[in-house]
Amino acid sequence: MTLIPTEYRITEIRRLVDPALHEVLDRLDAGTRLTCGYHLGFWDSEGHFPAEQNLNGKGLRPTLAVLSALAADAPAAAGVPAALACELVHNFSLLHDDVIDGDTERRHRPTVWARFGISAAILAGDALLSLANEVLGEARSEHVPDAVRRLGATVRQLIAGQTADVAFEKRDDVTLEECMSMAADKTAALLACSTSLGAVLAGAPPTLVRGLAEFGNHVGMAFQLTDDLLGIWGDPVLTGKPVLSDLRACKKTVPVVAALTSSTAAAAELRDLYNRPDPLDEGELIRAAVLVDEAGGRAWTEEEADRQLAAGVRALDPLELPEEIRDDLARIARRLRGRDR
Amino acid sequence: MTLIPTEYRITEIRRLVDPALHEVLDRLDAGTRLTCGYHLGFWDSEGHFPAEQNLNGKGLRPTLAVLSALAADAPAAAGVPAALACELVHNFSLLHDDVIDGDTERRHRPTVWARFGISAAILAGDALLSLANEVLGEARSEHVPDAVRRLGATVRQLIAGQTADVAFEKRDDVTLEECMSMAADKTAALLACSTSLGAVLAGAPPTLVRGLAEFGNHVGMAFQLTDDLLGIWGDPVLTGKPVLSDLRACKKTVPVVAALTSSTAAAAELRDLYNRPDPLDEGELIRAAVLVDEAGGRAWTEEEADRQLAAGVRALDPLELPEEIRDDLARIARRLRGRDR
Repeated sequence: MTLIPTEYRITEIRRLVDPALHEVLDRLDAGTRLTCGYHLGFWDSEGHFPAEQNLNGKGLRPTLAVLSALAADAPAAAGVPAALACELVHNFSLLHDDVIDGDTERRHRPTVWARFGISAAILAGDALLSLANEVLGEARSEHVPDAVRRLGATVRQLIAGQTADVAFEKRDDVTLEECMSMAADKTAALLACSTSLGAVLAGAPPTLVRGLAEFGNHVGMAFQLTDDLLGIWGDPVLTGKPVLSDLRACKKTVPVVAALTSSTAAAAELRDLYNRPDPLDEGELIRAAVLVDEAGGRAWTEEEADRQLAAGVRALDPLELPEEIRDDLARIARRLRGRDR
Repeated sequence: MTLIPTEYRITEIRRLVDPALHEVLDRLDAGTRLTCGYHLGFWDSEGHFPAEQNLNGKGLRPTLAVLSALAADAPAAAGVPAALACELVHNFSLLHDDVIDGDTERRHRPTVWARFGISAAILAGDALLSLANEVLGEARSEHVPDAVRRLGATVRQLIAGQTADVAFEKRDDVTLEECMSMAADKTAALLACSTSLGAVLAGAPPTLVRGLAEFGNHVGMAFQLTDDLLGIWGDPVLTGKPVLSDLRACKKTVPVVAALTSSTAAAAELRDLYNRPDPLDEGELIRAAVLVDEAGGRAWTEEEADRQLAAGVRALDPLELPEEIRDDLARIARRLRGRDR
């Protein structure tokens, strides 16, 4: 296999981050370590055999964090604590969100709560959130306090986003603006943190940190909107989630809300379906997906995702990054938008 | 009311910490802020009316944290970020432990999960854990990274302790050593953090930090053992918990395990009761309490708590603290042991 430079760098970054991630887990008590490592795909639920590695969606945030250190002319190692922190926070939120959303499957395996119980999943998430801060505290950088503050602000946004997500399920008057703001909190905030935290630790000037965060914010929006589209029209074999899962859970994702807030006949029919007290059957779920499309929710979301992607890549222009770093960031961004999983 | 110096100082410290705690919550989204403030007793479940303040057990960790800054010859304000961090971590763990243990009442009010649901309680705990690190990151001290690392190590111990606690409920071969180690993780670790983190931020020498942490560790053990005794023989009106709640939940607390591991007839009868598949009725619960006493579990725990208290106070001797700080710390320690709630 021929590696283009981006692939090569991503492989190198994972070679740096993955062993560090394993080491961090070794600090935990045996029970919590088992559940955390199971969640991360390091081993199966017995902890004995190496689990089949499924790297879907994994390594994105660490890669971005290390690239952000490289963007600040620092060595890759300077970005590793940021990479670990972002990956740990991401997985903390997955662990708790799976409990909150009642999701039983992730990455083609039972979720931690489904396999080990709710208590274990809560504690595993707590452990990863705390470890994220601990590894930042260990960074050899005078900018640790700033990094810790930024991570804290990011986690507050994650929590605000998840809180809104839960609240939206019970409301039928969610505006598109609220929905976009929820996506910004739930997803874009941590992407923005990932694309800038390595630079923060490396002592990059504020304009560079801001520009990298802006890039991450837009790309994060593009990523979430793409995810919302896949949550309706994605192939379950590739996404690892049940087909039509977002509609089944009556999630107020962006395509759905864009459809519901359009003044179309399809919107009215979709609203009726979403307001049913009983769960929708398979036929109704498929009909709902068709209605989101007919009401323009799909097209709006596709266009907005493309617009966000373009705005993200544009945000890199004034930063005068080393060319290969700029190319890597732009390439990763495009891939997040074009991905089929 | 005449205030003795300790009371006066505690009141002053609370005057410093409480508004800061309110301010920290203001950073959260409205939903999460409501549940966090409800948990902390700042308002009722609607957020409209000031809740009846019930300060049982509150303010202990912040007070110790500020005293530890004073012990290092720093102004009280230098200890406030440590005070906030310890109080936030304490309440994070209460929020999640209540979900895990299924406890429906705390401080004479419904717990957050019982009132707002499990999702809200998980997110509220997450928020407080993250805020704890964020406020440490804001401390005006060059020792922030050290403080963050110590808080992280403490949270790992909390999680290990809670994980063990959950595991113990399903085991009937828990040793007294395992049980004491669980108490050290669940309770003493955060007390040790509280009695030293202000000194860490103040840049105290390692011997002072170590001595203060040793004091906190012993006092934390005395505190937990006293709590275990109250969990069986405490007055529910004063503890705010249902009568005999620990026995009802078949908790493997220190008095219970000290009794079970004694070679007495009472131990054998107690083991039979604890191994019943069905919940114990009121008569059996009272019988279980009598058996813990007869098997020597109560006396052993009382003596061990006194021993830990004495060791804690002794640990202060070589530290050459200002006399009034030493007296405050010793007085608080004795109160934790002698308290009736």
